[in-house]
Amino acid sequence: MSSSSTLSKQVQFIHEIDKLKYVERMTCLFNSNRHENDAEHSWHLCMMALILAPHSDQPLDMLKVLKMLLIHDIVEIDAGDTFLFDTQKSHDNMEEELRAAHRIFGLLPKDQAEELIEVWKEFEAAETNEAKFAKAIDRLAPMMQNASNKGGTWAQHNVAYETVIAKKQRIKEGSESLWQYAKVLVDKHYKKA
Amino acid sequence: MSSSSTLSKQVQFIHEIDKLKYVERMTCLFNSNRHENDAEHSWHLCMMALILAPHSDQPLDMLKVLKMLLIHDIVEIDAGDTFLFDTQKSHDNMEEELRAAHRIFGLLPKDQAEELIEVWKEFEAAETNEAKFAKAIDRLAPMMQNASNKGGTWAQHNVAYETVIAKKQRIKEGSESLWQYAKVLVDKHYKKA
Ligand SMILES: [Ca+2]
Repeated sequence: MSSSSTLSKQVQFIHEIDKLKYVERMTCLFNSNRHENDAEHSWHLCMMALILAPHSDQPLDMLKVLKMLLIHDIVEIDAGDTFLFDTQKSHDNMEEELRAAHRIFGLLPKDQAEELIEVWKEFEAAETNEAKFAKAIDRLAPMMQNASNKGGTWAQHNVAYETVIAKKQRIKEGSESLWQYAKVLVDKHYKKA
Repeated sequence: MSSSSTLSKQVQFIHEIDKLKYVERMTCLFNSNRHENDAEHSWHLCMMALILAPHSDQPLDMLKVLKMLLIHDIVEIDAGDTFLFDTQKSHDNMEEELRAAHRIFGLLPKDQAEELIEVWKEFEAAETNEAKFAKAIDRLAPMMQNASNKGGTWAQHNVAYETVIAKKQRIKEGSESLWQYAKVLVDKHYKKA
């Protein structure tokens, strides 16, 4: 694979995904009111996955986990960030995200486009060990950020304790010990400890 | 590995590296005057490595390449960004970067700290296939950004054509075809084509 049309498709994709640096998340950096963007978020999740992998309850293909976390938010270039506690939008935008995946990954040479669409779908399906762990990390990060920011988005949007617990306990599917840690963060903020 | 002191060290490290999002690079985003930060830069390099891996002249352990690119700039939290064409600073700050590696990775449990310091040193030594390719990607990215920004840092700092070629031709050690592409970008900017 070294023809110039292959490389030019890859270069076009590399330019396109630069836009992820402009997609702003609800969540802020640690101890900060500076909003995080999706590119730096994706980097931080990869680092967390590397470091926290020993807490996974199942064996992991780490290269797969990192691929998932590197690409998981690229669809938001077209579809925008979805707030976990916004039940309407979470439900509506799967179709929009699928279209985005086909448009953006579709800029790549066919074999690479197909591979990354499959990796993204595997992440979204949350069925394999790698997807469960990657999802757990993606759920854990904003909890740590919120805990450092006086409740962050939980406080700003008056999210109920039970709602946070209900949405976040899926961390358990990747790691029981990370869920125990995450629950302590929520309990402390809501003074349930 | 699930004792609470292990996890609390890992959590401390995850907080500490959030600072990489505040380390500003000389280089700007594509077609933009917004400076890039080290965290989003590291994410973009990982994506480039995934996509451009087929252009490597040697077989690669991709998990190793991604680890290198995820962590390669973390030392800049203490040591700051080094401009490739600043010959004085490039020379002086290896010692500072080594101290930074020991302080920051040293926050982790001992086995993880040792592993990441080794991975960082392997990247810096640029001798293994993985390090050569990761370095090639790290050199290529700002060339693409500069080319999209009317010369970017080359123009702002009046860097001579020969200097750019001399510094950048090490891309060849990772990939001859990526070097051919990179050289076209430089030649076009300096009107040598
Ligand atoms: Ca998201």
